Amino acid sequence: MSDAVSSPFDDIRRLITTMPGPDEAAVEAVRMRDRQLTKPAGSLGRLEWIAEWLAAWQAKPTPSVDRPLVCVFAASHGVTAKGVSAFPSEVNRQMLENFAAGGAAINQICAAYGLGFKVFDLAIDMPTGDITEAEAMDEKACVATMAFGMEAIAGGTDLLAIGEMGIGNTTIAAAIYTALYGGPAEHWVGRGTGVDDEGLRRKVAAVEAAIARHGDHLKDPLEVLRRVGGREIAAMAGAILAARLQRIPVVLDGYVATSAAAVLHAIHPSTIDHCIAGHLSAEGAHQDVLARLGKIPLLALGMRLGEGSGAALAAGLVKAAAAIHRDMATFGQAGVSERLS
Amino acid sequence: MSDAVSSPFDDIRRLITTMPGPDEAAVEAVRMRDRQLTKPAGSLGRLEWIAEWLAAWQAKPTPSVDRPLVCVFAASHGVTAKGVSAFPSEVNRQMLENFAAGGAAINQICAAYGLGFKVFDLAIDMPTGDITEAEAMDEKACVATMAFGMEAIAGGTDLLAIGEMGIGNTTIAAAIYTALYGGPAEHWVGRGTGVDDEGLRRKVAAVEAAIARHGDHLKDPLEVLRRVGGREIAAMAGAILAARLQRIPVVLDGYVATSAAAVLHAIHPSTIDHCIAGHLSAEGAHQDVLARLGKIPLLALGMRLGEGSGAALAAGLVKAAAAIHRDMATFGQAGVSERLS
Repeated sequence: MSDAVSSPFDDIRRLITTMPGPDEAAVEAVRMRDRQLTKPAGSLGRLEWIAEWLAAWQAKPTPSVDRPLVCVFAASHGVTAKGVSAFPSEVNRQMLENFAAGGAAINQICAAYGLGFKVFDLAIDMPTGDITEAEAMDEKACVATMAFGMEAIAGGTDLLAIGEMGIGNTTIAAAIYTALYGGPAEHWVGRGTGVDDEGLRRKVAAVEAAIARHGDHLKDPLEVLRRVGGREIAAMAGAILAARLQRIPVVLDGYVATSAAAVLHAIHPSTIDHCIAGHLSAEGAHQDVLARLGKIPLLALGMRLGEGSGAALAAGLVKAAAAIHRDMATFGQAGVSERLS
Repeated sequence: MSDAVSSPFDDIRRLITTMPGPDEAAVEAVRMRDRQLTKPAGSLGRLEWIAEWLAAWQAKPTPSVDRPLVCVFAASHGVTAKGVSAFPSEVNRQMLENFAAGGAAINQICAAYGLGFKVFDLAIDMPTGDITEAEAMDEKACVATMAFGMEAIAGGTDLLAIGEMGIGNTTIAAAIYTALYGGPAEHWVGRGTGVDDEGLRRKVAAVEAAIARHGDHLKDPLEVLRRVGGREIAAMAGAILAARLQRIPVVLDGYVATSAAAVLHAIHPSTIDHCIAGHLSAEGAHQDVLARLGKIPLLALGMRLGEGSGAALAAGLVKAAAAIHRDMATFGQAGVSERLS
C-alpha cells in the first residue's frame, strides 16, 4: 500500500465517496408545509416535487432560490479538424465576446428570469487533442480542469444551472456516450448545430475512430472523460461535484452538459442525485441518455442551442416553485376550508 | 328576414365572422430576423415558433411581451349540490380573499415572472342552475357574461393568460366536452381537486344526467355553453374573442379553461388560432381535448390546480421567448461567423 503511487484521479474517486446524501428531515418539513398550503394536495405536480428536491439537497426545511446562477463553460476541440461542425472554430472566441456583450440567447434568458450568469474560458484558443488520434487531455490536466470547475461556483449560489459552448462538442458528447454505453456510434451522434448528411457521416466516423483508438482504456469513466472528452465537460463534472459538497442543487442543460453528469453517474449513480435535467434536447440521443440516468426533463421545447439555455429556462421554473412553496398562505392563515372528509 | 327575431347569440356568431387572421408579413419579418440571430437556425425550437405566433396575432414585426396579464374568472355552480367536489362551495369566496391577499399559488407565479394579475368575481355567491336539472344560465345572462369577459381585458395587455376558479367546475368542463365530443361521460370526467371513487361516480352521474336533461339542444355549441357551462367559462370565451379582436395572443390554462376555447372551436376552428395551450393538465382527458383542438401544450408538469397557474408559468416562457427574439445580437452586430456553406 505504501508503495502505491496515488494518481490525481484517485483524489476524485475519494471525493465521490464523501458526498453528502439527501436531507430527509428537510424533505419531510416541505411535505408537511405543502399539505397546509391553500391548494388541493398534489395539484402542483412536479412543482411540489421540485420543492422537495431543493430541500433535500440544500438541506433546508424551507428551500430558497434567491441567488440562482448559470455557469457556461467554453472550450475548443481538436476533433473539429475532422469537419464535424457546421460552424468554424473561430466562433468559440466570437461567442465568448457575444456572451460578454450580452448579445446571446442565454443573456436574454438570464435577464428575463433574474439569474446570475458567468462564463468560464477554458483556454479557448488552445484546442484539446483530436480524440480520433490522441488523448484529449492528460490525467493531470483533466483533474486540474475539474478543480477549476469546482472553484467556479465558489462565489456562492443556491441553484446552479450548468451549460457549455464549444464548436465540435456534440461529437465529444457522442463519443462519451458511445464509450459509456456501447452500441453503434450512429445511435449517439446527431446533427448538433445542423450538419448536413456528409457532416453527420464525418461525426460518426470520428466517434468510431476515437472509440477504436482508445479501446479498453474506456472502461474507466474518468479515462473516458480525459481521452474522448473535453475541458468544458471536465469542468462541468467538477462543478457538479462541488455543488453536491456545498449543498447546491444543479440543473443540467442538454445533450452536451448531460455527458458530464453521465461520466459521474457511471462512477456511481448517486453522484448526480442532486441534479435534475432542465430540458429534453432535440438532439435525438438525449432522451436515451436521460432514461439511463433516470432523469425526467422539466421542459421539452425542441431546443438544441446549448450555452445553458434549456437549464436557464428550467431554473426559472425552479425559482417559481421555490417561491410558491415559501410564500403561499396556509389554509389556516387564509381562512380557507380544507377538503371535506 | 325583417321578421326574424335576432337572438343575443346571433351577435356572438356575427362577431366570430369578423375575426382578423394572422399577420403573415409580421411572421415573415420574425423569420428574417431569426435567421440573423447568433445561434444555429432552429436551435431554439418552440421558442422560435412562439415569437412567430406572437407576431402573427399581435400583428407586429417585432413582438413584445411588456404587459402580460393573468385573468382569473371565478364563479359558483349549482351542480355542487350533487356532491361532485372534494371541497365545500364556501371555498369560492375564501379563495377570492386569498387571491386578494396574495396568498394563492397564482400570486407567487405572477410575482416571480412579473405578470399582471386580475380576478373577476362572477356573482360568486349566486350559483348557476344545477345542470343536471336546469339550464346553467339563460341566453341573455350567458351573453352578458361573455360581454363581461370581453370588457375584462380592456385595460390593455400584450399577452393574456386566462384561468378560472370555481368549486365544481371540472364537472362543468366534463359536461361541455361530453356534449361537444360525445362518448361516455367516464372518458371526460376526472378527479378534479381530488374526489374519491364515490365522488368520481357522482361526477359521472351528474354529467350523464346533464346530457340527458338537455338532449338535442346540445348540438349548438353556444347552447352547450349556457346549458351545461358556467359563468367563468362564458367569461373566458368572451375574453378569448375580445383578445382576438384587440390583437392580443392568449395562453390557455388547463382542463377547465380549455373548455371555453373548445366551445369557440366548435363554432369555428379558426376562432382559437390565437390561443396556445399553456400546459397539459394532470386531469386525464385534457390531452384528448388538446389533440382535438390541435394544440401542443408548452408545459407538462402534472399540474391540476387551475387558477391560471399553468398558463401563468407558460406566460413566463413566452415572455422569455419574446425577449430572446427582440434582444439577441445578429451575426453582423456581434461579429460572429455564420455557418460554413
